[in-house]
Amino acid sequence: MRRMPTYLHRLLRMQAGGEQWVSCADLAAYMNIPHILVRKDVAMTGLRGNRRYGFRVNELIEAILRFVGWDRPSTATLIGAGSLGTALLGFADFETYRFSITSVFDADPEKIGREVHGFRIYDIAEIRKRLHQFSPKIGIICVPAVGAQLIADILVSLGIRYIWNFANVCLQVPPGVIVQREVIAGGLAVLSAKIKQSEAGGGNVGQESE
Amino acid sequence: MRRMPTYLHRLLRMQAGGEQWVSCADLAAYMNIPHILVRKDVAMTGLRGNRRYGFRVNELIEAILRFVGWDRPSTATLIGAGSLGTALLGFADFETYRFSITSVFDADPEKIGREVHGFRIYDIAEIRKRLHQFSPKIGIICVPAVGAQLIADILVSLGIRYIWNFANVCLQVPPGVIVQREVIAGGLAVLSAKIKQSEAGGGNVGQESE
Repeated sequence: MRRMPTYLHRLLRMQAGGEQWVSCADLAAYMNIPHILVRKDVAMTGLRGNRRYGFRVNELIEAILRFVGWDRPSTATLIGAGSLGTALLGFADFETYRFSITSVFDADPEKIGREVHGFRIYDIAEIRKRLHQFSPKIGIICVPAVGAQLIADILVSLGIRYIWNFANVCLQVPPGVIVQREVIAGGLAVLSAKIKQSEAGGGNVGQESE
Repeated sequence: MRRMPTYLHRLLRMQAGGEQWVSCADLAAYMNIPHILVRKDVAMTGLRGNRRYGFRVNELIEAILRFVGWDRPSTATLIGAGSLGTALLGFADFETYRFSITSVFDADPEKIGREVHGFRIYDIAEIRKRLHQFSPKIGIICVPAVGAQLIADILVSLGIRYIWNFANVCLQVPPGVIVQREVIAGGLAVLSAKIKQSEAGGGNVGQESE
């Protein structure tokens, strides 16, 4: 599932370049991953290819969007307009996924009332009053770890059932609430382990795309 | 490997709280993942536990650091001091991993010469002249996708063999250079698929910690 945005990104560029067909081998070469992995990923979307030409670029884009659930729009509220939150607000690819952040809250008096990437930052103290205006489906938590559980509790109490958590803490949530946690340091762990392996003479560990 | 930072984070908090022993069940409950997964992860570090008490917190921390390759310090240069780059510069947990960013470059005249989190931002045009002063092991690419390949080429030409790539593009690098790509939208794809599953009546898909 984590590879889907990368396929999409590549396919959209191919589409923009006027290309009509793509093969699993093309995508595998681009991402430097085994052919068979791409074949399996594409099969999961349910799309059947043409034996000779591969897949139609347009159809594969649509199949991926449908498979991921990005064929329907979804909206989010962002809590925490620090540098990571700001990076997310400026993330151009969200539009492709029909994903949009429609409200932003922070506790910092320096930030409240200011605009970031065209978003006015609201006072987190007003979230109970304001959030219903936006009726987001997803809550994005970009606050420091120490405050993340409290924010999660508030979001859940306001009816949010899906949380994308960037704070370095595992949130405790009631059954039925889904949390996706993003561990940026996880990538560093993978890289560090590869460096260790490589320096120990582990040979060519190659490029890893996720 | 991606779960290692989360275990570490939890164990360091336990250590700070004076706790001496930890079981796989404790970590599994915290992360809301199956017990057996934690047991396998811990086994990979090579640490043998005590049948009755589990693992010594101190020893498990050290075993994880050693396993990931974080028992030795490593340094990095960061290219691109936008909001994501700034977030990485302020990431306090890097210290735990003995990982430090020691130089920052950007192409934006507004940013060059300014300081972010105590780091002076250098002109990317001077990277050939300046980088050797810092002799970083890892290059972190936080520039927009369109410029990422050029930056990777420059880093490789300057002797960098390990790249942590946050740009939404798969870099083409010579054999022997290792690229770890971070796809932040990958987490959104996982979350979106879970939302789709949940709304289709897929039952309790629970909390996923990575």
